[in-house]
Amino acid sequence: MKSGDLTTSNVPQELSAVSKGKAPLLPVTAAPARPGGWRKGIAIFDFIIRLCAMAAALAAAAAMGTSDQTLPFFTQFFQFQASYDDLPTFQFFVIAMGIVAGYLLLSLPFSIVTIVRPFAVGPRVLLLIFDTVALTLTTAAGAAAAAIVYLAHNGNQNTNWLAICQQFGDFCQKVSGAVVASFIAVVLFVFLVVLSAMALRRT
Amino acid sequence: MKSGDLTTSNVPQELSAVSKGKAPLLPVTAAPARPGGWRKGIAIFDFIIRLCAMAAALAAAAAMGTSDQTLPFFTQFFQFQASYDDLPTFQFFVIAMGIVAGYLLLSLPFSIVTIVRPFAVGPRVLLLIFDTVALTLTTAAGAAAAAIVYLAHNGNQNTNWLAICQQFGDFCQKVSGAVVASFIAVVLFVFLVVLSAMALRRT
Repeated sequence: MKSGDLTTSNVPQELSAVSKGKAPLLPVTAAPARPGGWRKGIAIFDFIIRLCAMAAALAAAAAMGTSDQTLPFFTQFFQFQASYDDLPTFQFFVIAMGIVAGYLLLSLPFSIVTIVRPFAVGPRVLLLIFDTVALTLTTAAGAAAAAIVYLAHNGNQNTNWLAICQQFGDFCQKVSGAVVASFIAVVLFVFLVVLSAMALRRT
Repeated sequence: MKSGDLTTSNVPQELSAVSKGKAPLLPVTAAPARPGGWRKGIAIFDFIIRLCAMAAALAAAAAMGTSDQTLPFFTQFFQFQASYDDLPTFQFFVIAMGIVAGYLLLSLPFSIVTIVRPFAVGPRVLLLIFDTVALTLTTAAGAAAAAIVYLAHNGNQNTNWLAICQQFGDFCQKVSGAVVASFIAVVLFVFLVVLSAMALRRT
């Protein structure tokens, strides 16, 4: 009878612990107050990262778009000038960064929706899919521009492509800055995708 | 009575068709038998896409790595030859594609785990994070190589970089093929990331 008494006193205790602690929230810490609290935290974090990525993309587009340099000497027929639209890759970079910044602006309302309603699945899946595509676009633009910038800095002996950064130093510096800004945007996008996946997952 | 007879003879036929054919797979038909059936379907699909992406990455690395061309004429001191390791971007391409193919091979066991245990969250989150990073690496390598290939095909007037594909036609063709293969891998990776997110989400 004693052992039977023990069992009956043990069972409700464990049951109540399970139903109180682990039910709505994290499996480990089990805060009882607000259901979906950590999801809301992730959503707010998502919103902030989104703003930072937008700033980085805009900075990249602006730095690349305003990068032109005219050399202080010229001949009778020719003026030495370098601009981003001399190279198609840099044009693509400016366009892609503009698209990405625009997308990020348009995605802010959806991010706000995920803050207000932490358990909404639809907006998060939408954001994750488009974030992945935007990540690809940003990476492509940044990497292509980086390849050309490397060539402009170092040239290539084998193909007889000469470095142009000796003449157009300021131009190269600005373009390199734009590439760095785009890579920052890439890293932020990776965080966005992983965060969205974390928020989507079953508890 | 004839029409009633027809209906009763029709119904079990359709029912049996549903329960035999489509039951354990699609989420729409709402199979009562096995929970997580559509998750298993996604996991199998994930495995197949992973194999395809590995094939694409290997093909890209192989096509780029074997791309060299020696012109049939030479001077006393010089032989005209083009190889992928003349250009650092192409070297990076080969290395990155090798890494991606190796990662995909190593990720196959984890993919099998998600097939066997459709509700396991850990392996999926792991795969999603690393897939995102691999997507970035693949895109960067592909885009950088594409920028250089474009330059090799068309040259650039403004910076005085001449097209080399008139001389090295075969080389350029092989390199372009490698870039196309890498872009196929990129598309497959985007599918992988989106599929993983789908499988992670709460029903």
